[in-house]
Amino acid sequence: VMVLKLSAAVGSVSESKSVDSSAQIGEIMAAKRNAVTTEAPESSAPGEGTALALDSRLSKRVESVIPKKRHEALKWFGWGYNDSQFYGKDGIICFRGEKYPLGGCELPSFTKWVEKKFDLRVDTTKQYPQLLRTYPRPVENAPFLHELKGTTQVDYSAEGIDRLVRCHGQTLNDIYSLWHHKFRRIPDLVVWPRCHDEVVQLVRLANKHNVMLVPFGGGTSVSGAITCPQNESRMICALDTSQMNRLLWLNRENLTVCFESGIVGQDLERVLRSEGLTVGHEPDSYEFSTLGGWVATRASGMKKNVYGNIEDLVVRVRMVTPSGTLERECSAPRVSCGPDFNHVILGSEGTLGVITEVVLKVRPLPSLRRYGSLAFPNFEQGVLFMREVARRRCQPASVRLMDNEQFMFGQALKPEKSWWASVVDAMKQRYVTSWKGIDLNQICAATLLFEGDLKDVQRQEALIYEIAEKFQGFPAGGQNGERGYILTFVIAYIRDFGLHQGIVADSFETSVPWDRCSLLCRSVKQRVVSECSKRSINYYTISCRVTQTYDAGACIYFYFGFRSTDVADPVELFEAIEHSARDEILSCGGSLSHHHGVGKIRSHWYRNAVTETGSSLYSAAKRHLDPKNIFALGNLLPLEEAQASPPPPTSSTPPKAKL
Amino acid sequence: VMVLKLSAAVGSVSESKSVDSSAQIGEIMAAKRNAVTTEAPESSAPGEGTALALDSRLSKRVESVIPKKRHEALKWFGWGYNDSQFYGKDGIICFRGEKYPLGGCELPSFTKWVEKKFDLRVDTTKQYPQLLRTYPRPVENAPFLHELKGTTQVDYSAEGIDRLVRCHGQTLNDIYSLWHHKFRRIPDLVVWPRCHDEVVQLVRLANKHNVMLVPFGGGTSVSGAITCPQNESRMICALDTSQMNRLLWLNRENLTVCFESGIVGQDLERVLRSEGLTVGHEPDSYEFSTLGGWVATRASGMKKNVYGNIEDLVVRVRMVTPSGTLERECSAPRVSCGPDFNHVILGSEGTLGVITEVVLKVRPLPSLRRYGSLAFPNFEQGVLFMREVARRRCQPASVRLMDNEQFMFGQALKPEKSWWASVVDAMKQRYVTSWKGIDLNQICAATLLFEGDLKDVQRQEALIYEIAEKFQGFPAGGQNGERGYILTFVIAYIRDFGLHQGIVADSFETSVPWDRCSLLCRSVKQRVVSECSKRSINYYTISCRVTQTYDAGACIYFYFGFRSTDVADPVELFEAIEHSARDEILSCGGSLSHHHGVGKIRSHWYRNAVTETGSSLYSAAKRHLDPKNIFALGNLLPLEEAQASPPPPTSSTPPKAKL
Repeated sequence: VMVLKLSAAVGSVSESKSVDSSAQIGEIMAAKRNAVTTEAPESSAPGEGTALALDSRLSKRVESVIPKKRHEALKWFGWGYNDSQFYGKDGIICFRGEKYPLGGCELPSFTKWVEKKFDLRVDTTKQYPQLLRTYPRPVENAPFLHELKGTTQVDYSAEGIDRLVRCHGQTLNDIYSLWHHKFRRIPDLVVWPRCHDEVVQLVRLANKHNVMLVPFGGGTSVSGAITCPQNESRMICALDTSQMNRLLWLNRENLTVCFESGIVGQDLERVLRSEGLTVGHEPDSYEFSTLGGWVATRASGMKKNVYGNIEDLVVRVRMVTPSGTLERECSAPRVSCGPDFNHVILGSEGTLGVITEVVLKVRPLPSLRRYGSLAFPNFEQGVLFMREVARRRCQPASVRLMDNEQFMFGQALKPEKSWWASVVDAMKQRYVTSWKGIDLNQICAATLLFEGDLKDVQRQEALIYEIAEKFQGFPAGGQNGERGYILTFVIAYIRDFGLHQGIVADSFETSVPWDRCSLLCRSVKQRVVSECSKRSINYYTISCRVTQTYDAGACIYFYFGFRSTDVADPVELFEAIEHSARDEILSCGGSLSHHHGVGKIRSHWYRNAVTETGSSLYSAAKRHLDPKNIFALGNLLPLEEAQASPPPPTSSTPPKAKL
Repeated sequence: VMVLKLSAAVGSVSESKSVDSSAQIGEIMAAKRNAVTTEAPESSAPGEGTALALDSRLSKRVESVIPKKRHEALKWFGWGYNDSQFYGKDGIICFRGEKYPLGGCELPSFTKWVEKKFDLRVDTTKQYPQLLRTYPRPVENAPFLHELKGTTQVDYSAEGIDRLVRCHGQTLNDIYSLWHHKFRRIPDLVVWPRCHDEVVQLVRLANKHNVMLVPFGGGTSVSGAITCPQNESRMICALDTSQMNRLLWLNRENLTVCFESGIVGQDLERVLRSEGLTVGHEPDSYEFSTLGGWVATRASGMKKNVYGNIEDLVVRVRMVTPSGTLERECSAPRVSCGPDFNHVILGSEGTLGVITEVVLKVRPLPSLRRYGSLAFPNFEQGVLFMREVARRRCQPASVRLMDNEQFMFGQALKPEKSWWASVVDAMKQRYVTSWKGIDLNQICAATLLFEGDLKDVQRQEALIYEIAEKFQGFPAGGQNGERGYILTFVIAYIRDFGLHQGIVADSFETSVPWDRCSLLCRSVKQRVVSECSKRSINYYTISCRVTQTYDAGACIYFYFGFRSTDVADPVELFEAIEHSARDEILSCGGSLSHHHGVGKIRSHWYRNAVTETGSSLYSAAKRHLDPKNIFALGNLLPLEEAQASPPPPTSSTPPKAKL
């Protein structure tokens, strides 16, 4: 408690300064003397939880695009907004949704691509699944509920729909389970704490009464991380952070900002944009995912070359655990102060506690943003280009390389073309195939995003195009580049449409040293091909892209889908092949994950990835911070292994749940 | 063991590829299939410890500038080489030492500065301390020694001088204790393992027989981290990593290199230079400090703006703990795979295990290196300049800002001038004082180091000088800049000369958010002034510099020294004032340390810095990895607090040592 008081006092000075630059030095000096000498009482003081927030009068409530009742805006049965989806009309695939550039478009090329690739006709008659109005019977922990209602102000709901939409993330398995009403265990209660202090209360209560907590942010996890363990017998309480989304303070002098963890990516950027600033973290999920989720997952953004990944952006972070709040006491930019526990919070995947507040770096908005694209005769040349750009550390805000299959897919996604665009495309195609002597079945493309002032952008462009030339690359226009980035957010909707039409598809990713990059891409695709062949899957697509580059390697994304119309359990089959692909990735020197995390679906390999010593260290940290395992999501370590670890001395027998 | 075998096999592929780029894909494929499917036996296989090294035929032994008997080259009683030191001759301070630019110089200006500042005459008659040829009686653990000699090939020594020179780092207290023969406990034995596997053997033996281990690298710690705990009753064994300094492999395609941890900074850079490469990590200690020490301390280098701090350079690292070897399984550039335990190894300060091998990023040597300097009318303007440069992220390889006191000190350190240089200086001074209307008592200076190709460097220079102008800064010549950097390594020798002459002096550092930077500098200096005044210290110097800049703040270095000729225990007094200064730093929002670490001398504040939850998490990790506390250096947590933690279930009663 003393520690928290101390940092609270220091924080206070910081914030009063940041807001009122005319703050009197005398006052500041007085405050900092107090900060060192004040002895706080042992009991929990009212200000206990406010080290980062401190003066809530300064904070700004953010109106979110996602309502508290999230299903009012978001699909209960899949990705994204209720009003946005792919559908079939008169045998043509269309997209509805005013929020996206494809909104209202018919997609004849895409339709043809799908029909040819999967040898099926678009079925216009199929309906998306219907919501059952019955839900799994809740497990109730009466003493917990009693104390929750009696001693806290925390809002809660036991309504079935509130519970159902928070029982899962966005893995293929999650969606398939929803559609087929397979979830036996969903949260028994949803709570909406409004601030750090309420989270402290909730964690204390849950720990006292042995109730399991699921920290729930945007619900976009693709690792199974937030999916309820189906064999949990205790009461499960989803701790929805969405009402904890304030801008707590903004410090222009330091270019730092403090947000509550529940803020959604697009809300965060909108608020900052109005201040002329940006954090610049843009994972593909950024419309819906939250700051807390980014930290818990160790997320990566599209523009990490300029802004950094989440670990580069976090200056300070607080996590509430059953053993207390974990945070660093000061906001200095870099410290040498023993092991850096920010890196234990980062990647904790909801298993150690609830992330409540995060101090992030911000940057001034760039004055210019320009797109570009490059075509290469083949993928290997493209990889060499990417490697050279990384070697020279001249990456623009984003540079992504698609293989031929993805390039063609991207081309197919163009809506019905205007006459002019068609002509241009035809010319481009002729130019590409004849004038350069290039094989259209080998060609691949890179999309580029440049940010900065005009001079900067021009210099970046010149250098990038100069390097591209060395690898037989040539510019393919800004429009192609822009389309690549804009489609990112739409592409996420395809998975559900595919599932609906009898095609299971999803992506998986890895990171790999440069010298294995091409080999890994080739080997994994070959492996998928051979796994499909073994299983008599004849209609499928497997493609990859290089999405992030680093000094020593790159991030690779794979997209895989197959026609599942003849398959009994398509998701099980998909997972089996993905499992093989992951084995192949690991054997090629790739990582378990670049940015999706381990969750449950990759926990099989976690121990190997971090060595026995590493996984046992994780278990030791877990036992220390969460001795009763109330954050029992079962991520990282497979459930059975986690349970095999010595039982914590303080754990009591879990109450037999009513099922 | 299975984990280690797996990663070993993968590592194998990696390295054979890196060395022979024509490696056959078929072979690689075979190897990687094996990697996944091979089940290693439970027992310790011969190749167990070689995941990073793998093929020792590829490794390259490095001839170190530091001999195995380190006292043959390095002072037993202070900083640096035996043949390099300040001394007095005919009342003038001189420096001897051919390795440095001041070698053979008389320093009349410096002499005057010292005489005026401290009101004393340089004493030419004083002798540096003499080595006593008696040493504390060693504590011997006979079963350990028996097994060490019988079952390992590890070289060792129980000679007094070998033990003495490894009982300490380079704090003022360390040196003072040496001079006054105050160490009661020094290592009882020195061992020189030659590779990871021998470290594994040593840690196993030490753990079995409950012998304390001190991982000893370059001996340059300034936090007390490697100083033997004076109340340790078990046998203390210094594990000297100096013979573990091979270049294990170099991968040009990935721009990564693997070194054993005992390699000394200058050796590492020399070896890489011959390959046209550099790691670029240059802490002020880099002549003597080791790679392992950098990792354990979370070191920072002068050129971090280009190359990054140690945490940015480390791709992979292995640490041998009593509970096994902690490492990450793959060399991917960035992963999302749970908590990142590299950041537990970084900053572990010798308390969790022995760092044995490190994979680092390398960069091509820059084609050009150019120095520069700037003068500013006052420190505050200089800080605003530094902040603007950081805001625009256009820092050259190094930019450091000195306050007036340090600027004057630097000027004084010039050797006797040639006529021409004197005239130039006089002109410069006239220009500065009259033409710009600037107060010589306020003026401060920044030194600059630019690296890159000519075009790059020119662009960097143009931008920096443009920004400087906005803050009334003006170029002060490349020579001034170069001197600033070259003197860095010489300045480290002054401390011992001062101590010898009756002046205690040392540096301490911190990091701080930008908005507190000037305030902190001012407040800490004021605090030191008032502490001196309280204690009737009339002759002293206190100065500061800003040495590193980040997006959100900066690193500040303070230099403090006072005349101690009338003081009974000058080091105790120094520490008391430094303690007050640290309180002041913390209360101004500064960190406990930017890059020196916590060690013993800052352990008083560790718990507050990381919160109660953080320090207990550290203790839990410590208990898990080192249940018998054989790495009992007592860093981070004060000894009494560490001991107050619950005893590990597996610990046996330590044998009563013979004293």
